[in-house]
Amino acid sequence: MSRERQGSLVSFRPDIKVVDCTLRDGGLVNNFRFTDEFVKDLYLANIKAGVDYMEFGYKASREIFKREDFGKWKFCDEKDIREIVGDNKTDMKLSVMADVGRTDFRKDILNRKDSVIDLVRVATYINTIPAAIEMLEDAKKKGYETTVNIMAVSKVSDVDLDGGLELLAQSSVDVIYLVDSFGAFYPEQVERLTDKYLDVAAKYGKKVGMHAHNNQQLAFANTIESLSRGASYLDATVSGLGRGAGNCYMELLLSFLRNPRYNKIAIMNFIEKHIGKLKEEGAVWGYDIPYLLTGTLNCHPSSAIQFIREKRTDYAMFYQDLIDTAL
Amino acid sequence: MSRERQGSLVSFRPDIKVVDCTLRDGGLVNNFRFTDEFVKDLYLANIKAGVDYMEFGYKASREIFKREDFGKWKFCDEKDIREIVGDNKTDMKLSVMADVGRTDFRKDILNRKDSVIDLVRVATYINTIPAAIEMLEDAKKKGYETTVNIMAVSKVSDVDLDGGLELLAQSSVDVIYLVDSFGAFYPEQVERLTDKYLDVAAKYGKKVGMHAHNNQQLAFANTIESLSRGASYLDATVSGLGRGAGNCYMELLLSFLRNPRYNKIAIMNFIEKHIGKLKEEGAVWGYDIPYLLTGTLNCHPSSAIQFIREKRTDYAMFYQDLIDTAL
Repeated sequence: MSRERQGSLVSFRPDIKVVDCTLRDGGLVNNFRFTDEFVKDLYLANIKAGVDYMEFGYKASREIFKREDFGKWKFCDEKDIREIVGDNKTDMKLSVMADVGRTDFRKDILNRKDSVIDLVRVATYINTIPAAIEMLEDAKKKGYETTVNIMAVSKVSDVDLDGGLELLAQSSVDVIYLVDSFGAFYPEQVERLTDKYLDVAAKYGKKVGMHAHNNQQLAFANTIESLSRGASYLDATVSGLGRGAGNCYMELLLSFLRNPRYNKIAIMNFIEKHIGKLKEEGAVWGYDIPYLLTGTLNCHPSSAIQFIREKRTDYAMFYQDLIDTAL
Repeated sequence: MSRERQGSLVSFRPDIKVVDCTLRDGGLVNNFRFTDEFVKDLYLANIKAGVDYMEFGYKASREIFKREDFGKWKFCDEKDIREIVGDNKTDMKLSVMADVGRTDFRKDILNRKDSVIDLVRVATYINTIPAAIEMLEDAKKKGYETTVNIMAVSKVSDVDLDGGLELLAQSSVDVIYLVDSFGAFYPEQVERLTDKYLDVAAKYGKKVGMHAHNNQQLAFANTIESLSRGASYLDATVSGLGRGAGNCYMELLLSFLRNPRYNKIAIMNFIEKHIGKLKEEGAVWGYDIPYLLTGTLNCHPSSAIQFIREKRTDYAMFYQDLIDTAL
């Protein structure tokens, strides 16, 4: 099915939903060790900014991850979220993410009536989609909205992706996310993939979301490319805070959207208070040459994160090592 | 005329030319005060990287600008260029830029046979196009390749732009540049404008170039969008060095291009040696919130440059002031 751009630069599409993942993807930068003030201020800023969903973090398994190795947003206990949001009597919804194989979802994800969480987002690789569907059906049965992220699709063949999308679209999931885990995609690839996702989603009444990484300074460009094709759930983080090169900048995305619901001023005020401070305290994220290299070579940013942590700048040597292992 | 994307992600278009503007647009950051070592190393890196044109700076009028207020690349004397390049016995061509009304082009631009310069690039606003054409014809008569930048087109009406493009296309100029002076354009606007430029250019056998700014982290995305429509002259700078939010990053662009002529390793080595140092010495450029705001409001970055120079972070107040003056 050939598609045209949706919407225009002067109107807005009411189906668009903005999802703030600052704590969740940003937590991968500092092991989820945010101060309560940071989290509370972000919550209030997101409400003022008109953000549709705020993601607090992961529902990670305590069998696998030790409590003391991480801040509380790795686990997102109900009481910890409630300490920030009370009963969340606002029109912003809350979400958590759960990774296939790294969560005790049956136990740790409560019934929705007992939780302030509205949306459960499941992250899966292509080969764990049946396990993801099990989690999605559990969450749906408990009363939640659900989305699914198929990670690392830049490594997945078209035939496998088609099969995985078909399976997911037949589940009860509400939204299927296109995820550029490695920041490897150019806009024309995002265009083609978004069309593919939309074609399958449309058959089953599902929506499509976009989660981008900024390895090639394309996170925002790819997000609005996907949006302009018809994706409606858009992930972003404040100042792009997120693993490695980070994500689509919330302030860029809100500047682009024309819905009067959105207001970037609250986000700018949050940035003024918190983001410089976070950097001073040692958090490192955002575009840098090593991330460009892992992005263009379509591989995980872990080696680039390590390279930057060691304050190395011998980019050419890093690139040679990467070529050996990546291709 | 409706156009399709040109080329693919696995082949290359031999008509593509990469133009390094690091010294010229970057000179606006530090008043052109680059060390000779920086310039020489950049020249050698560009040759190794396969860059097609290297721009040394401006041919600025000494009647208007005092010699002592600027480094030498504001003026680009023949002898200064030759001190770096000798007779430039390489297959990389050299360019200079001349602004309408700020150059003594008849006197300061020599005959090409007496110069190592290959390309004269004229920068004009929409209302000085006749004066630009006078300069372009002078340069062509002297034997140069020529390009023209129409600046600030995000402020120009379609009817004026159509008229200006038609005038320029009828001149002897070789390449007409789409310039996003304020970093105001989204890729879909670049798509439409590139098509417009190409339609006029094609009638007269001209080529189209793209010069982007990074206010919304879209310089690279807009450059490859324009390229994929058919633009063939692509401006970039090392690490995006350029006024305000800077330009399209050379290392991103070379990573994208598939022509084996291009090699980003030489650029990465240059960055390792020089770019961190330049920042430590106080040069400031690159994406930041004030540039996002001037970009989305489609106005000159000067107030944002001033705001950042004063190390202010009261973004919300800056934004309010900007709205008052910009719209």
